[in-house]
Amino acid sequence: MNEPGITASELRVRYAETDQMGVAHHSNYLVWCEQARTDHMRALGASYRALEEQGLLLPVVEASVRFRAAAQYDDLLRVNCWVREVCSRQVKFGYAVERVADSQLIATAATSLMAVDANYQRTRIPDHIRQILVPVADPVRL
Amino acid sequence: MNEPGITASELRVRYAETDQMGVAHHSNYLVWCEQARTDHMRALGASYRALEEQGLLLPVVEASVRFRAAAQYDDLLRVNCWVREVCSRQVKFGYAVERVADSQLIATAATSLMAVDANYQRTRIPDHIRQILVPVADPVRL
Amino acid sequence: MNEPGITASELRVRYAETDQMGVAHHSNYLVWCEQARTDHMRALGASYRALEEQGLLLPVVEASVRFRAAAQYDDLLRVNCWVREVCSRQVKFGYAVERVADSQLIATAATSLMAVDANYQRTRIPDHIRQILVPVADPVRL
Amino acid sequence: MNEPGITASELRVRYAETDQMGVAHHSNYLVWCEQARTDHMRALGASYRALEEQGLLLPVVEASVRFRAAAQYDDLLRVNCWVREVCSRQVKFGYAVERVADSQLIATAATSLMAVDANYQRTRIPDHIRQILVPVADPVRL
Repeated sequence: MNEPGITASELRVRYAETDQMGVAHHSNYLVWCEQARTDHMRALGASYRALEEQGLLLPVVEASVRFRAAAQYDDLLRVNCWVREVCSRQVKFGYAVERVADSQLIATAATSLMAVDANYQRTRIPDHIRQILVPVADPVRL
Repeated sequence: MNEPGITASELRVRYAETDQMGVAHHSNYLVWCEQARTDHMRALGASYRALEEQGLLLPVVEASVRFRAAAQYDDLLRVNCWVREVCSRQVKFGYAVERVADSQLIATAATSLMAVDANYQRTRIPDHIRQILVPVADPVRL
Repeated sequence: MNEPGITASELRVRYAETDQMGVAHHSNYLVWCEQARTDHMRALGASYRALEEQGLLLPVVEASVRFRAAAQYDDLLRVNCWVREVCSRQVKFGYAVERVADSQLIATAATSLMAVDANYQRTRIPDHIRQILVPVADPVRL
Repeated sequence: MNEPGITASELRVRYAETDQMGVAHHSNYLVWCEQARTDHMRALGASYRALEEQGLLLPVVEASVRFRAAAQYDDLLRVNCWVREVCSRQVKFGYAVERVADSQLIATAATSLMAVDANYQRTRIPDHIRQILVPVADPVRL
């Protein structure tokens, strides 16, 4: 998914991330999506680490994942991340997790994040950040 | 939510489950839902541990969570779990996470599980298990 | 280990805590020890949550674990925790993890915690806290 | 630590790995060491994934970590891993975790792994694997 507005993060499935079914446990996908979102925002020029230091927090308020195939220990995965929608106080991201070896689609996901200030009060996403978070069309059906 | 067909699991938020926002990280909710599902199935007489030993696996194929309020370190939480729907090869569970101290609703969630055999091939949920997994109406809007 | 100065915490091994060996992954033991330490400090009257709110943090600076037997999904475990040693700026805890069903010793562990203030600068453990954290002899060899 | 017999793995601290102290939680270091060990064994030509598929498992039986400085969200870390000692049934690894930006030493660790077969019975490490796992002197004091 080498398209404008999509950032691809790579990671290897860790042993600790497997469960006794012999596959990556489903809770890890939210962690991987978050890693991809961090990389995507950094690539866009809106480092989330810097945003937090400036007092803008983006907690996840909604998340959904569809698990389409299993990932295994030591599999190299590519997590594609893009902005789906931006509002004054929310931003929605989409994700597609693929296995690098065979481009098999492993999972798709979506999360909504809400802007809050350092006191955890709802706030607006600053305009210069909203201008960076340009939505693109979903490259796959989520 | 002391109603027939709903099992309540209690847990305390662990320090390791917090993040630098000072609240429980959102990926933990899927783990807590799984713990509640384990407790619910045991309470119904369909121990998931026993099912796996008999060769029936129930991987999660879809999950969604709405985060409504933050949970903090050392908070005692109650995770209510119930069956929403049973089909020949799938079962759907619902969850409502509350803070015990003030009954604040923290999160709601839903997961779909698919029946597979020990070789990870799709299979039917045995009749005697399906008869145990009786759906109840959602006690809250998910 | 129902002895004075030792607090026993119970927990069930979560599915997410297993790995593809079919046992609880070794990194979880530090999380379980921390849960037991939280329970032990609360039992002694020195709630760690309250200490942090008052500006005293106790990060772990050293940890060691010996894994003696495997724990499995759904096993009910008892984590015993006690104070081994208290100094002006450090406190050391010991842990013994047992399976409740057969009292099998699963693991032993030790951690050292250092007192820091809210700015992460080294500080002294207040006297009234040190007086609560009374060391006891190790009930098992760590 | 660009020395023969030492493999350096890089990783970024994930948001989910932080805790409410604002630093990476100490339990993650065992997971990072495991990732570095996987990379080191692959680099040596003894892929752990392949070993497991051939029926040789290496569970961790002992682990110790010294936490020397805090790692923060989004920090790029380098985890150096090497073999410390090889016996007929055990192998010991050493680890040094550094922050890439300033080469600050963050933590050091050691783990002992025991060879077991697919039935979890103690076994010998095959000679051709032992010949690959050549010990090197610790590059730092653990």
